[in-house]
Amino acid sequence: VRLTRVTRRPDRHDFQEWIVDMRLGGDFAAAYTVGDNRLVVPTDTMKNRVYVLARDAEFASPEEFALRYTADFLADYPQVESASVIIEEQSWQRIEVGGKPHPHAFVADGAAQRAARVTTTRESVRVQAGIRDLPILKTAHSAFRDFHRDPYTTLPDTDDRILATLLTAEWTYVAGEHDWNARFGDVRTLLLESFANHRSLGVQHTLYAMAAAVLEAHAALADIELAMPNRHRVLFDMKPFGRTNPNRVFVTTDEPSGVISARLVRGGD
Amino acid sequence: VRLTRVTRRPDRHDFQEWIVDMRLGGDFAAAYTVGDNRLVVPTDTMKNRVYVLARDAEFASPEEFALRYTADFLADYPQVESASVIIEEQSWQRIEVGGKPHPHAFVADGAAQRAARVTTTRESVRVQAGIRDLPILKTAHSAFRDFHRDPYTTLPDTDDRILATLLTAEWTYVAGEHDWNARFGDVRTLLLESFANHRSLGVQHTLYAMAAAVLEAHAALADIELAMPNRHRVLFDMKPFGRTNPNRVFVTTDEPSGVISARLVRGGD
Amino acid sequence: VRLTRVTRRPDRHDFQEWIVDMRLGGDFAAAYTVGDNRLVVPTDTMKNRVYVLARDAEFASPEEFALRYTADFLADYPQVESASVIIEEQSWQRIEVGGKPHPHAFVADGAAQRAARVTTTRESVRVQAGIRDLPILKTAHSAFRDFHRDPYTTLPDTDDRILATLLTAEWTYVAGEHDWNARFGDVRTLLLESFANHRSLGVQHTLYAMAAAVLEAHAALADIELAMPNRHRVLFDMKPFGRTNPNRVFVTTDEPSGVISARLVRGGD
Amino acid sequence: VRLTRVTRRPDRHDFQEWIVDMRLGGDFAAAYTVGDNRLVVPTDTMKNRVYVLARDAEFASPEEFALRYTADFLADYPQVESASVIIEEQSWQRIEVGGKPHPHAFVADGAAQRAARVTTTRESVRVQAGIRDLPILKTAHSAFRDFHRDPYTTLPDTDDRILATLLTAEWTYVAGEHDWNARFGDVRTLLLESFANHRSLGVQHTLYAMAAAVLEAHAALADIELAMPNRHRVLFDMKPFGRTNPNRVFVTTDEPSGVISARLVRGGD
Repeated sequence: VRLTRVTRRPDRHDFQEWIVDMRLGGDFAAAYTVGDNRLVVPTDTMKNRVYVLARDAEFASPEEFALRYTADFLADYPQVESASVIIEEQSWQRIEVGGKPHPHAFVADGAAQRAARVTTTRESVRVQAGIRDLPILKTAHSAFRDFHRDPYTTLPDTDDRILATLLTAEWTYVAGEHDWNARFGDVRTLLLESFANHRSLGVQHTLYAMAAAVLEAHAALADIELAMPNRHRVLFDMKPFGRTNPNRVFVTTDEPSGVISARLVRGGD
Repeated sequence: VRLTRVTRRPDRHDFQEWIVDMRLGGDFAAAYTVGDNRLVVPTDTMKNRVYVLARDAEFASPEEFALRYTADFLADYPQVESASVIIEEQSWQRIEVGGKPHPHAFVADGAAQRAARVTTTRESVRVQAGIRDLPILKTAHSAFRDFHRDPYTTLPDTDDRILATLLTAEWTYVAGEHDWNARFGDVRTLLLESFANHRSLGVQHTLYAMAAAVLEAHAALADIELAMPNRHRVLFDMKPFGRTNPNRVFVTTDEPSGVISARLVRGGD
Repeated sequence: VRLTRVTRRPDRHDFQEWIVDMRLGGDFAAAYTVGDNRLVVPTDTMKNRVYVLARDAEFASPEEFALRYTADFLADYPQVESASVIIEEQSWQRIEVGGKPHPHAFVADGAAQRAARVTTTRESVRVQAGIRDLPILKTAHSAFRDFHRDPYTTLPDTDDRILATLLTAEWTYVAGEHDWNARFGDVRTLLLESFANHRSLGVQHTLYAMAAAVLEAHAALADIELAMPNRHRVLFDMKPFGRTNPNRVFVTTDEPSGVISARLVRGGD
Repeated sequence: VRLTRVTRRPDRHDFQEWIVDMRLGGDFAAAYTVGDNRLVVPTDTMKNRVYVLARDAEFASPEEFALRYTADFLADYPQVESASVIIEEQSWQRIEVGGKPHPHAFVADGAAQRAARVTTTRESVRVQAGIRDLPILKTAHSAFRDFHRDPYTTLPDTDDRILATLLTAEWTYVAGEHDWNARFGDVRTLLLESFANHRSLGVQHTLYAMAAAVLEAHAALADIELAMPNRHRVLFDMKPFGRTNPNRVFVTTDEPSGVISARLVRGGD
């Protein structure tokens, strides 16, 4: 479900664009085995509820919306045991006109890639937030050496490579209310800063440092999972042209090869 | 890793194109915590092994290749506890010239979408096969009615709709050797036939019937999991134009809404 | 505009799925300069006409539909000077059940990729048809040698490479009525056959041979344009592993590099 | 050709990522008709030249690079009559650490979408620059009314809709040297500002105003062409739920329908 919402304030419009994905758990066996649909909540109904709730209430964050949506859902449908909502927020920034943000014109900015996930059951509520596929890279302080060598190894050791990846992160909040927007911004900033400042001995090494930095700084997080595929920049071979290539010109490659991922749980390391 | 292989026979060439995805399990904590890469097998080495094995040996199926690759991998790297290989096969058919298949010219045919997955550990081997995102539809014998109704429901009951989906299936073979190619073809055929012949009361109902038909007919399968998102065709409203629309003209919509999925385990139903 | 149509016959259903793209020419300057929309036919209206015409009339081919749509359009809107309709047909085949085509169940087959284009003005009608992005390849009878060499050249001569491409073709029919479906099938078959049988000295060479074969065989065609990007399969270097690679194992690459295209006009070569 | 370049300065690294597309004109008929490749410059050679030039010389802008590349190309290959280079720049921004831009860590920012095109022949040089597919929208001051009405019209007049589009622009510089980076930034800013400030009576109306504003403000431009597909946000119908929808909640739709485009030439309006 793709939702656009405009909040019309006296001095400006706020603009939200979300992709909302919902999943249900419960005993719907009869629909499968004999085609008895009496307990089935059609996707179309779930969709309608998204738009109606977006109309009726104010939400400053996707987490708030998902908390309310899943709670209402379980209240209304006794046959549903768990409801999960994932919201991806499309990032729109105000266009600057004469250096000032415009009240009702926006330009897309791909740099946020925010996602939220709320899973509500009859017994528990879990709130997660994250970042999806944010391209980041560093051109220094990145080595990869002294790895396992065998007859199939052709990769040379390097002390100075481009480390490029698409950062995907998802963390779980400890129970309770949080300032979801502020928290997201803080975690995102710390992930980028720790990536930038790390002296990397490998993607695994940097990924762990980023996750550990976040868990250490933010007691509000119970765990964090990161995935960072290698997006290789391959040094172009200048030898056929009688030239050196002092780490200057690279071939950009697209296919992610080597997805490195790990999940750190507070107290678990 | 994307691999193309040509097998040159006296009378014809055989052509295989695979996307090979590998995942490892084991204790690589030192690479994460302190950047000690001594146990790390670089992605590049894993890639080299794919091409070398493809050169050295003959394989009539992706399953055979994956079995050999994972077995070799565990034999060579004691630090690896499990190795998983997923192969997606790109489907190429011989071009027909004068009604006869050409010995070395091919045209892509999107209709197979075959995938194989082998997971090998120190104790066990699991072979799975499947189909990914195969578009199928039926224009009759598909109803969806008598579902849960509430104030958010706008979807009308229907006895005659287009049921369109992207079929994704994955099944697990019972231990032992099988004729992987023949088996894949048989299961695929039965999935399509049972889809075509079913009198559907809902996607769940048809999905279950397809899975049950496969498990019943093929003792070689331990389980099967199907996922079938609804790809709606929406009846175009002809009222503004003073016309009826007797289930004839539809708006094609793209976004999958309502992914229905289930896993059937032998003996479990 | 994406259109699905079901034609319900006594013994079977026929199924068509089209993507319809329309373009208009005319003097709409007032809409641009002063926002006077009185002559503007909204996209929404153009879309409605597609669905209504699909309901009202029978069409055995996308060409017939486009001829009628554009003729009606010019008749109804004097402010329109030219109307062009491009239809891409999604290819669906009947599922075979027990070896026989099923009356109302279908599976997508990516191998057709048919397109039609009709451009109608106050003075003329032009009908074009074509194929879009059909993957084809041949593993023999393909050389590329004796090209221009200079200090930037590293590509070696080869007498035996994989020639792989995405075939895009568009041809123009001479004025008059044709059996659009039969013609399309014949031209498509001849393109594939001439590709398969050609002893290629380069993509340009094969492309020309294919285009020339079609123009020679089909007097109904006034011209034909082909585009064939190189989809390289790069021989994997086995030297680091102490092995040869007798044209057997290749790296599949995705990015089209080197789009070769040409247009042949009857009498113009 | 995809190129990554790092320029290593004492205090920081600069990072450029380009997709470079090249097209040649000339008489290469012999390669087509008889497979005589002696005049053919292989794509591989063209690619090598990109990397070697990127290594050898400094370029502050894609325009400078393309000017030099095409000039060299015509100088080295007498058989080439025209060379065109299109460069798309991937936008990377420095990560901020403690509020300061980091010297060698970057995050992708989708907001620029810059492209440059240089076409050099034996007689002339043409430099063009542009923006590709930049998502912009405004939530006020956008009407669409008083358009042509007929029996196929269902779209209502509106005085207040969301105007959303993907901005694609390309302009041609008058002959001579320009500060390519500054100029690009200025034109981009003016396009966004005039979009934001315009009281729109239709996409055509806004597009024209944007193009006219740029041509009026920038004598360095000979022409400008804009394309702006409608990316509709459709008001969600709240009637079935007993609610109004005061322009608040919309369905986001993806398919561009109605690509509006126009080219303005200086002195031509």
